[in-house]
Amino acid sequence: MNTSNRRIVALAGGVGGAKLADGLAQLLGDRLVVVVNTGDDFEHLGLHISPDLDTVMYTLAGIANKEQGWGLSGESWTFMEQVARLGGPDWFRLGDRDIATHAIRTGRLRAGDTLTAITADLCRALGISSQLLPMSDDPVRTTIHSRGRALPFQDYFVRLRCDVPVERLSFEGAAAARLNPLVDAMRGDEAPEAIILCPSNPYLSIDPILSVPAMRGWIKATGAPVIAVSPIVGGAAIKGPAAKIMQELDVQPSAASVAAHYRGLIDGLVIDTVDDFHAADIQAMGIATNVTGTVMRSIDDRKTLAESCLAFLQAVRSRAR
Amino acid sequence: MNTSNRRIVALAGGVGGAKLADGLAQLLGDRLVVVVNTGDDFEHLGLHISPDLDTVMYTLAGIANKEQGWGLSGESWTFMEQVARLGGPDWFRLGDRDIATHAIRTGRLRAGDTLTAITADLCRALGISSQLLPMSDDPVRTTIHSRGRALPFQDYFVRLRCDVPVERLSFEGAAAARLNPLVDAMRGDEAPEAIILCPSNPYLSIDPILSVPAMRGWIKATGAPVIAVSPIVGGAAIKGPAAKIMQELDVQPSAASVAAHYRGLIDGLVIDTVDDFHAADIQAMGIATNVTGTVMRSIDDRKTLAESCLAFLQAVRSRAR
Repeated sequence: MNTSNRRIVALAGGVGGAKLADGLAQLLGDRLVVVVNTGDDFEHLGLHISPDLDTVMYTLAGIANKEQGWGLSGESWTFMEQVARLGGPDWFRLGDRDIATHAIRTGRLRAGDTLTAITADLCRALGISSQLLPMSDDPVRTTIHSRGRALPFQDYFVRLRCDVPVERLSFEGAAAARLNPLVDAMRGDEAPEAIILCPSNPYLSIDPILSVPAMRGWIKATGAPVIAVSPIVGGAAIKGPAAKIMQELDVQPSAASVAAHYRGLIDGLVIDTVDDFHAADIQAMGIATNVTGTVMRSIDDRKTLAESCLAFLQAVRSRAR
Repeated sequence: MNTSNRRIVALAGGVGGAKLADGLAQLLGDRLVVVVNTGDDFEHLGLHISPDLDTVMYTLAGIANKEQGWGLSGESWTFMEQVARLGGPDWFRLGDRDIATHAIRTGRLRAGDTLTAITADLCRALGISSQLLPMSDDPVRTTIHSRGRALPFQDYFVRLRCDVPVERLSFEGAAAARLNPLVDAMRGDEAPEAIILCPSNPYLSIDPILSVPAMRGWIKATGAPVIAVSPIVGGAAIKGPAAKIMQELDVQPSAASVAAHYRGLIDGLVIDTVDDFHAADIQAMGIATNVTGTVMRSIDDRKTLAESCLAFLQAVRSRAR
């Protein structure tokens, strides 16, 4: 379908993003670069945990726990039971095998290695041919503002199970965060052929990536067509609190709202067949639409949606010429 | 045997020290304070590991792995297998349950808690009534100097299996290390009734404790009788490289050499029946001797040796009066 050797960049957060990234990886292999949200990263039990990097990494390696939506399949919980026995914090579950990722990462970060270099080595060990890049090697921390409180992301997402209203989001450290140097280097002859915003939560997963000051400028500078896949299908999120957050922020949860959110950045939006009736509104914003099945239930669904995205990109690019 | 309510302090390193500490704990309960070597502490895979604190803690909790000499009994190794699979360092073995201790400790240290406070909470969770105190809350790092190289302790002890000659030892950070404030507070009415140097390696386990500048002065200031138990029996160490190190440092491995090493600090030395012939030499140094079986094979042996130590302390104190 695509005979170019130029790379394709996907911006991704957790589960939904990881699924499309996996579909793209099946088609593109080492031509795929996934730029991953690190706004969810945090320190817990002394370990540096990068939930979205791990979800994408485990998904592309075929070892993710599909039922759970995080962590590894076939995991054991001996560590966690002992943490509870010792009176330690057990609200964030870490499996015995999963901790190996966090411990290796933490040890190397403390020794001065970058998250980029560590992620590359972990991916190599797991046999992943696509390139996974944290959006930045500098810390950016997504913070939820609710009822006068500033909640670190995992407190909101895991400990409180998103059960407080989001009034505002901020990305602490973003102003000083440098774009991942390997992203920044994709310019000129090395510029990607296309950029895809995966169906991740626009507020919690994609906005933190876009909060890195040089990110939007880099996207423009590549001259590459940019498409997004709507994570909102039929007014609801496939998974996670995207629709709930949109309501709390007084935004109608719809594919059209996703288009409005990304207006000025994207050339096209992939929407689900059930959202066909939004297509005209979205096109009126100057954004092309591709209507297809976007719900990824099987491994094959991931590949099918990825194929649809690549075909849509060709159409978007032709239109731009 | 002992009707006082005053505390007894034991100085201890790893396995041998932990066994006698356990014997003393069986007799003394919350009257026992174990001051533990932290010169072996190190950072590994992002975790702060305190091997001697853990060995004493696990031994007193009755959950130590007796065959292995470190870690927990009935341990599983899922984490370690995954570290190896991911290409991480696997020369220092960490069991799935054991990591809970390190992770809780590391998380709290990073949050600003002291090793003393963290150890107290871990001991409480494990049902230990005796008090375990790190020698200092400041970092002291035992370093082995061999053939022009300065080896961190665990590199020497675990990675190289002690298979390089020790030319010199240093205790990095010791000059600036403050005595554990809870040790320092045991003065006047709160001074301990007696101090026991456990049969730990004098060079690798007890000397680091004594390297904390205020330690020797505190011991003197308590006015308490001080005895040691020789870790050298019949010219050899029960476990570990004590005898090997003595030879490398041109010291005859013997109970008499242990007495000479501690001269000026101890009032009495407990030696094994096989070392009876050294008693006169040791007494000539002004050090009383107690000849008894010192090899602890069973849990009961620990208690028996502890009883012998307490009886010997009574005799040493009577003599001093």
